[in-house]
Amino acid sequence: MVKNLILIQCDDKVGLVALISSILANHNLNITAMREFVDERSFSFFTRIECSGELPSVSDLKLQFEKELPLHSIISINPKQEKIIAILVTKEYHCLADTLTRHFFKTLNAKVCCVIGNHKNLEDFTRQFSIPFYHISHENKSKSDYEAEIIHTLKSYNPDFLILSKFMRILSPQFIEHYQNRIINIHHSFLPAFIGASPYKQAHERGVKIIGATAHFVTNDLDEGPIIVQQTIPVNHAFTITDMIVAGKEVEKAVLSKALQLLLQNRVFITGNKTVLFE
Amino acid sequence: MVKNLILIQCDDKVGLVALISSILANHNLNITAMREFVDERSFSFFTRIECSGELPSVSDLKLQFEKELPLHSIISINPKQEKIIAILVTKEYHCLADTLTRHFFKTLNAKVCCVIGNHKNLEDFTRQFSIPFYHISHENKSKSDYEAEIIHTLKSYNPDFLILSKFMRILSPQFIEHYQNRIINIHHSFLPAFIGASPYKQAHERGVKIIGATAHFVTNDLDEGPIIVQQTIPVNHAFTITDMIVAGKEVEKAVLSKALQLLLQNRVFITGNKTVLFE
Amino acid sequence: MVKNLILIQCDDKVGLVALISSILANHNLNITAMREFVDERSFSFFTRIECSGELPSVSDLKLQFEKELPLHSIISINPKQEKIIAILVTKEYHCLADTLTRHFFKTLNAKVCCVIGNHKNLEDFTRQFSIPFYHISHENKSKSDYEAEIIHTLKSYNPDFLILSKFMRILSPQFIEHYQNRIINIHHSFLPAFIGASPYKQAHERGVKIIGATAHFVTNDLDEGPIIVQQTIPVNHAFTITDMIVAGKEVEKAVLSKALQLLLQNRVFITGNKTVLFE
Amino acid sequence: MVKNLILIQCDDKVGLVALISSILANHNLNITAMREFVDERSFSFFTRIECSGELPSVSDLKLQFEKELPLHSIISINPKQEKIIAILVTKEYHCLADTLTRHFFKTLNAKVCCVIGNHKNLEDFTRQFSIPFYHISHENKSKSDYEAEIIHTLKSYNPDFLILSKFMRILSPQFIEHYQNRIINIHHSFLPAFIGASPYKQAHERGVKIIGATAHFVTNDLDEGPIIVQQTIPVNHAFTITDMIVAGKEVEKAVLSKALQLLLQNRVFITGNKTVLFE
Repeated sequence: MVKNLILIQCDDKVGLVALISSILANHNLNITAMREFVDERSFSFFTRIECSGELPSVSDLKLQFEKELPLHSIISINPKQEKIIAILVTKEYHCLADTLTRHFFKTLNAKVCCVIGNHKNLEDFTRQFSIPFYHISHENKSKSDYEAEIIHTLKSYNPDFLILSKFMRILSPQFIEHYQNRIINIHHSFLPAFIGASPYKQAHERGVKIIGATAHFVTNDLDEGPIIVQQTIPVNHAFTITDMIVAGKEVEKAVLSKALQLLLQNRVFITGNKTVLFE
Repeated sequence: MVKNLILIQCDDKVGLVALISSILANHNLNITAMREFVDERSFSFFTRIECSGELPSVSDLKLQFEKELPLHSIISINPKQEKIIAILVTKEYHCLADTLTRHFFKTLNAKVCCVIGNHKNLEDFTRQFSIPFYHISHENKSKSDYEAEIIHTLKSYNPDFLILSKFMRILSPQFIEHYQNRIINIHHSFLPAFIGASPYKQAHERGVKIIGATAHFVTNDLDEGPIIVQQTIPVNHAFTITDMIVAGKEVEKAVLSKALQLLLQNRVFITGNKTVLFE
Repeated sequence: MVKNLILIQCDDKVGLVALISSILANHNLNITAMREFVDERSFSFFTRIECSGELPSVSDLKLQFEKELPLHSIISINPKQEKIIAILVTKEYHCLADTLTRHFFKTLNAKVCCVIGNHKNLEDFTRQFSIPFYHISHENKSKSDYEAEIIHTLKSYNPDFLILSKFMRILSPQFIEHYQNRIINIHHSFLPAFIGASPYKQAHERGVKIIGATAHFVTNDLDEGPIIVQQTIPVNHAFTITDMIVAGKEVEKAVLSKALQLLLQNRVFITGNKTVLFE
Repeated sequence: MVKNLILIQCDDKVGLVALISSILANHNLNITAMREFVDERSFSFFTRIECSGELPSVSDLKLQFEKELPLHSIISINPKQEKIIAILVTKEYHCLADTLTRHFFKTLNAKVCCVIGNHKNLEDFTRQFSIPFYHISHENKSKSDYEAEIIHTLKSYNPDFLILSKFMRILSPQFIEHYQNRIINIHHSFLPAFIGASPYKQAHERGVKIIGATAHFVTNDLDEGPIIVQQTIPVNHAFTITDMIVAGKEVEKAVLSKALQLLLQNRVFITGNKTVLFE
C-alpha cells in the first residue's frame, strides 16, 4: 500500500481536523497516523498526517487544500524523501563520524553531499567514506570572503540543510539569511545556560551538577535560535574541564543525531522562536 | 468556553478520523487537542479528543457516534471528572503519603474514599488527613474471608479504582475479577525483571546497575498485567539491599504518581495486555 | 560494633591519606568506607571516613589530627546525628509536604523545629504534623524588620539549617550572613539558566526542551551559591507554562529531597562557590 | 610528574588503607585519587589508587605489597596502558563503528587488532579503517570447528579482550574458558529481563514502557555474567518492534562505549557474579 505524508501549518480555525480529514477520506486515503497541535498563543495549527492509499495528483490535492484552508497555509505533500545535507566542521570528529557512519549504512535518511572544514584534520576520515572534503580556511581573509567561498562551494550541491557539526565559527547574518531555517547547530551546553564560547569551562567554574547539549536552528542571535533537541547528563565535583568535554561529546552526538532524525523525517515545524516536534 | 472530552476505542476502518471530526464539526465543536492511535496488530483504533463548544445532549451525541462507528465501539463523553479511589496498604508510607498529600491540596483530581491496611501503622497518618482508615488483618482467616471483608468495606464507597500502594499481599482471581481493570499496583522492579517477592534482594544478588518500578493494572497473572508507567534509576556496587530499598521508594512514588495522573485524566486505554497512553 | 564518622577538609600535601589512616589504625579503628578528593586548583583535600571500633575520647583524637594535619584544617568527628532544621515557605506545598512526611516517619535524619510562612495557607497542613507554624507576613514592614522577626522566632530553636522550600522572597546579605553556609534554597530551573523570577515563564518563552531544578546554598548573589543537586526532565511544545509548573514541582521535590539527604548525612563540603559531594 | 596506577583486590582486614597508603608514603608517592570498597558479604577489599612520584622498581613494590597484604591478593602496578582488543560481529554496524571511530582518532585507549565476522557485510567498512577483517562463517561446520577457527585466528594477536559487538551466536563453555573474564558482550535488553533471543520482540509483546541494554562479562550461563553497565530509554505504545530496534541501537552503543571506557581505564573489578566499578 502506498504511504503518503502530508504536512500543514496554518492559522487555526474551527473544524480544521474535520476539513482536512474529510478531504483525505473523499480521496479514499486512510489516516494511519496523525499528529496535530494548536498553539493557542499564536492561533496557529500544525499537523503531520501519514495516510495510505493512491494519491490523486499532488498538485490537485494541494490546490484543493489551498482552496479550503486559511490563506497563507504552508502545505507540503510527499516532500522530497532524501534530503541533501552539507556538513561544516572545525576539528572535532564525533558528530561528523556519527553522521557519516549512518550515511554509509544508509540509515541517515539523507544524502551527505560534502564536508567543509576550516581545518584539515578531518579530511582523511571524510574521504575514507568517499565524501568530498573541502578545506576552506578562515585565515587571512575577511569573514565575507570566507563565507562567499563556502556559499560558492555549496552552490552546485544545492543542499537542503547545513549541519554545523561542532563548527566553531560565528556566521554572519548575510550567510544565515542565505540558508534561512536550514542551518542546524549543535551547542555544547543546555541553552540558555552558557551561551557563547567555552561552555564547559563556564560550567566547571559555576560548579554545575549537570552538563548538556542543544541542537537548534541558527538565527542571527548567537545560540538563540529555535531549539530542536536538548539533553543533560550528570557530572560531579571530580570532573575536570577535560572530563566534561569528553563526557559532553557523547551528549552532543546523541542530541544532534536525534535532531537530524526528526528533521529528515519531516517531524520539525518552526513557529516563531520555537519548534513543534511530532515524534 | 466549555471544554469537552471524548474517548473512543473501536475497530479500525478507513475514514474514522474524518467521520468523528465531521460529527464534531457539525455540532460546531472545535477540536483543541486530539490524539489517536491505530494498533495495526489488533486493527484497533483509539482516540482522545478535547473540544470546546456547547455540547448537544451527551446521550444524543453518543447515539450518533454509535450509529456511525463500528459495532462494539467503546465511547465515553465527558466522563466523571472526580473519580473515587480506595487505597490498600501494608506498612510502607511513601506512596500513600504522596497520594494523600495531593488529595489534601486538591491536586489529585480524585476523591480518596478510604484507606485499608492489613497493618495498623499507617492509621494515625491517614486519620490526620481526615480519611477513614480500616484495619483489616489477614491473620487467622482464609483469603476468601479476608477479601470478602475488604469488598464489604468498599461496597458503600463504590470506588472507581483500587490503588495497591505497596500492598504486599496477592489477591485472588475472584477479587480481581470483582474490580476488573480497576486495580492498579506498584511493583518495585522494572518488570518483567524480578517478578514476585523481594525484587531488591534479587536485584542485589544479580548485581544489576539499574533498579526501577512499574505501575500496572492487576490481572490474574502475578505482575503480568498491562504496564502503565516504568522508570529506572542507576545503582552501583556500593548499594546494599537496604540502600536499594531506600532509593527505590523514590522511583516507586514517582511512577505511581505519574500513573495515577494519567489514569485520572482519562489518558489510559487498555488493549489486551498493553496500555495506550495519550500523555 | 560502634560506627564512627570523620570529616576532614584541609590543604593538600603528600601523604595525607597515609597520615590519617595510620592515626586511625593506631587506635585500632577499621576504615569501612572512605571517600577523598583533591581539588587540584585550590590544593584542598577533602575526606569522609566511616570507621568501626571504639573511639578514644573525641577531643583527644581531634587534637592528634590537629597536631599532624596542615594548619586551619577543619576536622569533625562524629558530628551531631540529628540536625535541627527550620523551613521557610510561601504558598507551595510540595517540598514542605515531602520533608514533613519523612520527618513524621523518622526517615528525614533531622528534627524539623518549625515552619515559617509569609502566607497562612500551609498552616493547617503543618499543624497536622504537630510542627509549630509561624505566620510572619512581609507586608507593611521593612525588609530588615521582617527578617528580624524571623531571626527572633528562630533564635530559641537554634537550627542548624534553614530550608527555603519554595520561599519566594529574596533575603538580605545581613540575614544570609547570620546563617552563613546554612541556608539551602530550591530554585525552579537548571541554573545558571533562568536566574531570578518566573523561570518557567522564561523557559516557555525560550522554547526549551528540558526544565529542571537546582538545590543550592544561598549566598549574597541571587541564585549563585554553591550547587548541591540538579536534575532535568523533558518537556515539549505542547507544555503550557502551567504544565511546566506542575511537572517542575516533581523535580523540585526530588532535588530538594536528595540535597537534604546528602546534607543531613554529612556528605556535602563547600569549597569556594562549589560543593564536593561524597554520595 | 610521573603518574602511577595501583590496583589491589584482596581479603579485607583492619588497617588495609593505612597499610597500603603508608607503603606509598614511604616511597614518597603522593595519592592523587583513591577509591576503595569493602564487600562486607565476601569480606573482600578493592582499591584503585592513582599516585604521583618516581616509583621504585615495579617488582620491588609488588613484592613489598605481597609481603604485607593478605595471601592471594591480586596486585597490579602500572598495568599495560594500551590493551589489545578483538571485535566479533555478525551484521549490525553501530557498535563496531563506534569503536573503530574512537580507535581511528586515538581516543579508544586500546588497539583494535582485528574484526571477525560470521557474515561479510561489515568487511568493507572495517577495511576502510585499515583494520584486518576475517570472515569466519559458522555454516557447514561444527561449533567446535567454528570456534577453533576463531581461536586460531586470534592467536597471533594475543588480545586482552574480546568484544562481542552484537555477535549473535552463543559461545561454548570451552571457548569462554579460553578467554576467562576477557569476553564482553552487549545484550539488547535491561537484563535480567528478556534473556536470550529477540529481546525487543519480547519487550514489544510484554508492552513495556522502557527498553535498554546491558554490557556484561560472558560466562557459561547465557546473559548471566557480571554486569558492567546498563541503561534504559522510554518507549511507548506507538513503538513497533522495528522502532524499538532502531531506538535500542543508540542505548546499546552508549552502554558498550561506557563499558569499554571503564574497562580500558582499569576501573572494573570482578567479584563473583558482580562487578565493582570505580568511575
